[in-house]
Amino acid sequence: MALAQFPISTTPRTLSHLACAFSSIPFSLFIHSSLSSSPIQPIPPPHPPNTMSTATNTTARVQKLRELMQSPEHNVTAFVIPSEDAHQSEYVAECDERRGYISGFTGSAGLAVVSLESAALFTDGRYFLQASQQLDSNWTLMKSGLPEVPTWQEYLVKNLPAGSRIGIDPLVFTATDASKLEVDLAKVGSSLVPTANLVDLIWEDRPARPASKLMILSTKSTGRTHAEKIEQLRKNLEKKSVAGFVVSGLDEIAWLFNLRGSDVHCNPVFFSYAIVTPDYTSLYLQEKSVSQEVKDHLGSEVAIKPYETIFDDLRAMSSSLKANNKKILLGSRTNLAMAVALGKENTVEARSPVTDAKAIKNETECEGMRQCHLRDSAALINYFAWLEEQLANGVEVDEADGAERLEKFRAEQAGFVGLSFDTISSTGPNGAIIHYKPEKPKAARINPDLVYLCDSGGQYIDGTTDVTRTLHFKTPNAHEKRCFTRVLQGHIAIDSAVFPDGTSGYLLDILARRALWADGLDFRHGTGHGVGAFLNVHEGPHGCGTRIAYNDIPLVPGMTLTNEPGYYEDGEFGIRIENVMLVRKADTPNNFGGRNYYGFEHVTLVPIQIKMIERSLLTHNEVDWINAYHAECLAKVSSFLAPGSPGLKWLQREAVSI
Amino acid sequence: MALAQFPISTTPRTLSHLACAFSSIPFSLFIHSSLSSSPIQPIPPPHPPNTMSTATNTTARVQKLRELMQSPEHNVTAFVIPSEDAHQSEYVAECDERRGYISGFTGSAGLAVVSLESAALFTDGRYFLQASQQLDSNWTLMKSGLPEVPTWQEYLVKNLPAGSRIGIDPLVFTATDASKLEVDLAKVGSSLVPTANLVDLIWEDRPARPASKLMILSTKSTGRTHAEKIEQLRKNLEKKSVAGFVVSGLDEIAWLFNLRGSDVHCNPVFFSYAIVTPDYTSLYLQEKSVSQEVKDHLGSEVAIKPYETIFDDLRAMSSSLKANNKKILLGSRTNLAMAVALGKENTVEARSPVTDAKAIKNETECEGMRQCHLRDSAALINYFAWLEEQLANGVEVDEADGAERLEKFRAEQAGFVGLSFDTISSTGPNGAIIHYKPEKPKAARINPDLVYLCDSGGQYIDGTTDVTRTLHFKTPNAHEKRCFTRVLQGHIAIDSAVFPDGTSGYLLDILARRALWADGLDFRHGTGHGVGAFLNVHEGPHGCGTRIAYNDIPLVPGMTLTNEPGYYEDGEFGIRIENVMLVRKADTPNNFGGRNYYGFEHVTLVPIQIKMIERSLLTHNEVDWINAYHAECLAKVSSFLAPGSPGLKWLQREAVSI
Repeated sequence: MALAQFPISTTPRTLSHLACAFSSIPFSLFIHSSLSSSPIQPIPPPHPPNTMSTATNTTARVQKLRELMQSPEHNVTAFVIPSEDAHQSEYVAECDERRGYISGFTGSAGLAVVSLESAALFTDGRYFLQASQQLDSNWTLMKSGLPEVPTWQEYLVKNLPAGSRIGIDPLVFTATDASKLEVDLAKVGSSLVPTANLVDLIWEDRPARPASKLMILSTKSTGRTHAEKIEQLRKNLEKKSVAGFVVSGLDEIAWLFNLRGSDVHCNPVFFSYAIVTPDYTSLYLQEKSVSQEVKDHLGSEVAIKPYETIFDDLRAMSSSLKANNKKILLGSRTNLAMAVALGKENTVEARSPVTDAKAIKNETECEGMRQCHLRDSAALINYFAWLEEQLANGVEVDEADGAERLEKFRAEQAGFVGLSFDTISSTGPNGAIIHYKPEKPKAARINPDLVYLCDSGGQYIDGTTDVTRTLHFKTPNAHEKRCFTRVLQGHIAIDSAVFPDGTSGYLLDILARRALWADGLDFRHGTGHGVGAFLNVHEGPHGCGTRIAYNDIPLVPGMTLTNEPGYYEDGEFGIRIENVMLVRKADTPNNFGGRNYYGFEHVTLVPIQIKMIERSLLTHNEVDWINAYHAECLAKVSSFLAPGSPGLKWLQREAVSI
Repeated sequence: MALAQFPISTTPRTLSHLACAFSSIPFSLFIHSSLSSSPIQPIPPPHPPNTMSTATNTTARVQKLRELMQSPEHNVTAFVIPSEDAHQSEYVAECDERRGYISGFTGSAGLAVVSLESAALFTDGRYFLQASQQLDSNWTLMKSGLPEVPTWQEYLVKNLPAGSRIGIDPLVFTATDASKLEVDLAKVGSSLVPTANLVDLIWEDRPARPASKLMILSTKSTGRTHAEKIEQLRKNLEKKSVAGFVVSGLDEIAWLFNLRGSDVHCNPVFFSYAIVTPDYTSLYLQEKSVSQEVKDHLGSEVAIKPYETIFDDLRAMSSSLKANNKKILLGSRTNLAMAVALGKENTVEARSPVTDAKAIKNETECEGMRQCHLRDSAALINYFAWLEEQLANGVEVDEADGAERLEKFRAEQAGFVGLSFDTISSTGPNGAIIHYKPEKPKAARINPDLVYLCDSGGQYIDGTTDVTRTLHFKTPNAHEKRCFTRVLQGHIAIDSAVFPDGTSGYLLDILARRALWADGLDFRHGTGHGVGAFLNVHEGPHGCGTRIAYNDIPLVPGMTLTNEPGYYEDGEFGIRIENVMLVRKADTPNNFGGRNYYGFEHVTLVPIQIKMIERSLLTHNEVDWINAYHAECLAKVSSFLAPGSPGLKWLQREAVSI
């Protein structure tokens, strides 16, 4: 799927029908019972066709917030409310949707600033229309990216009165961001004032923080014990000459301790922090998440402590760090509150070593990714066969029905835990809305005369999937075929790339676009992102795309990467072809410069619709690639489809040579 | 040719045989008579086979330098001698070869530091062996790039005693470099002390600074008058709200005033500075370079002043700038002496707007590049036909003979002025030495059983050329063919690339390497550089390669770029295929995002040897490209070859379909 954030489901998930799947899981697992316990506040997708147009009346809540700001206890003239939670998560739990609560704007990206006189909501072009419909008259919409519009940082410095006292909750700001901002604010005599989260204090009926029971992963599915991972981290810290590391990313903690949760929709994580030093490991968990099994799993080497108490422990560390002239490593996305508790002078900042270690899958994880993709591919094939049959029979199927049916096919697969993100099921023009999500009652009927795009993925106990296919159920026109073929050529170029060690996804990105560019076409999203192993579907630090930050992260064997070029024609159709790949050592006849050469192994195995391909545009190498890919789909996925089933027939018909 | 610096000729050029060529030049030109008046100090190439192994006895000169350093007038404890001249030229005149004089080391890259106790010479891996042979016992060789070796800046800070007074000639240091260094030196109580160039003061028989008479270019060859270029520069300065610009790059001045000289070997430039403000333009020239024709050309709007007096004028500007709170723009490569003369507080630094304007050729310049490449291609074809015949007849031809003969063929062409760099003519293993230059008596016999690589170029009054072809005169083996074909595929991929506006040569670079990488092969130089229009063969600011700085400079129509992927097998052979191209608007069927799409137009038209191609590796698109390219060579170059000549026959035999 595309790299920018996508909207979170409006539909509370009910996964009780998955019990059957769990019973067939061949691994030793502790399955929590609260997978569906975190209904998420509805967040519509970014584009008009699906926008809820009712503005929320925020007069009372903004008024309450201002009263609190003026109270002697807080005494601030403005308060900033970003989208992120204390862990800088890409997706947050409902209780952390503070910006949505105060402003009424529920898009995935945005930041609110409330001063005594004004209330401003900053968001980007994807959300201008939605925000203008959701914000009431208390709010001014700041259209980020337009030339005359300041960034929110500039706004704090220049638009608020000089000498402003700007309240922030240090839990939801990174230390890095705050440091930069403080310098600029000081120039106009303004300052950042750490406060409690004032929105939490006025939020009536704020949902409770979810505290799912934890799932324990055995070494059979993770390849390494948490003790081994901690040992590797310690060696890393020793090399960096630091006295410890504070782990704050939820997926980092889940990976490090071989635990999974369900506190955030589609992301199998749980609220937690951890501290690892040469001498001890502390894991901070919500009490409800702790069970005897979890204690047994973690063993005596890991101290389990209450979630909130980490700040006391950090403060306690501060003086001994100073006395011994030692530093604690903080990841660049760690919140300001932790840096303050430790004392900034006792910290050094760098990209999290846990993020880096997590990105490189071991052989067990790679094999898990392969295996779950076989089952996931079978589920998608079953769905396409089913959908084709319905449409052929004239049955009306809308985009949301399709998504629901696909989830059912996934749930039939062994090891299925849930979706890895909300399914994008889109017909015709809706396919051009990159992060479209069908919602009843607005979901469109899937029109067999139009191009259909489906981007979806699952969480399995042995891995996470993410796959897009674009199909036509009747006869595509020449333009649709040409565009599809250009996208396919980009997909093949990435899939078959061979490159020396040190090469980043920033450099490879052009291979995905070259064939499109030849026709004056392009797509406005990245080409690929890392995928967690039964973890978040978006994972760093690497990626393939035009973000210059990717250029600092060479691809190395064991990394996962999606390959998802696309093309979108507004009002007409969308095309995307996406597989998940593993970076692997390539077998080259030479090794110039004594370097290692790498390539990719695709693990997604769903046929690419031949009727969409304009064969005359292809080179013989590209034709060979398609034929080999289809042969591989047939060889590896057939056994996951029931004999005589529509899915197997569909695979046999589609996975052919051209 | 490759992007790294290449060695300057050891052979004083005699271009008197070119008079015939000049007489046929169809443009109105003033031809100077001193084109060969600047013999250059011999600089051997970087690799052992051609290294002069005699060390220079530097005892006396180093001793004299130290005496001068200790004199009350100068009073410094160290003196730094870089390679550059006052204009930060890539190639310098003999009188500016100070580092070579003081150390005996004549490589193209290096920096010397002489203290009262030590003398250190810093150079990179290309020159370790040569430097160790050329340096006598007074010197310590500092092998830059090895892990334990400090950079010269670190050396000044850490290896020299704290509190050192380090003399520098501010003429040969950029203000940018000096500023950075001063901060670090201050930490150890050391300082930079501007002095006269102490090497000049002790240099016996230092060659005089060349002062060639100037060649005037008419608008017919430049497309724009110098008044129009100055007007454009003024508009640019107005936009930047600066009170003027100091032009210090020699090629920038030559371009701006439509003048050419011959003060630096192979680079048609002349020693000069210029100041452009909204109100006046001053051009600072050596007296000998000024003639009545030059005065008439420049007209009354340009004040001609003596070369050295610019510093007095800059000092004079300083107070009025301060009084009016105005700033002068200095290019990032302007020397420290100018910044000091102006007062650093009165300056702002940025990439030179003249460099940027010069890089984008107008239609007249583009047409000149096309035309001179037709004649230059004919010359190269004549040479290859001649060489093939000699070798077929068993005549012994060495690499230097070949280069000389090629120069003669070029000199027969209309508008020829000289070479644009010393010809690389290399047989077998010598081809793997990327910047090889054949020198008598060491030049090898061209062995028809081995791969022959020839990289060469000319200066013509309508443009500058740079072309490489790789040939085999008998039967190449399968490995040579496969490597050649991989290089060719990279060349074709760059040549046929189409890309949206905003794309840089940093991003395109991978297209040149992709086919090589598939075989585990690569090359260790850039893919392409800008080429001047009858100016320096290396020109910025853009380029195609792995240097991240290229990523800041998008390619735009009118830019020139070489396309020169290669492959080098040490001790065996070298392969490079190089054309000059122009960036042009591409004719795409769509323009997604309302963007412009660009592509390349190759202007070099010399057949690519078919016997070196392994056809089975090529796609049909690549085959089509070769066939179309050969048809174009035949159609466009035939008329530049004499009827019935060996050259025409060779072209007709080689420029065929495969």
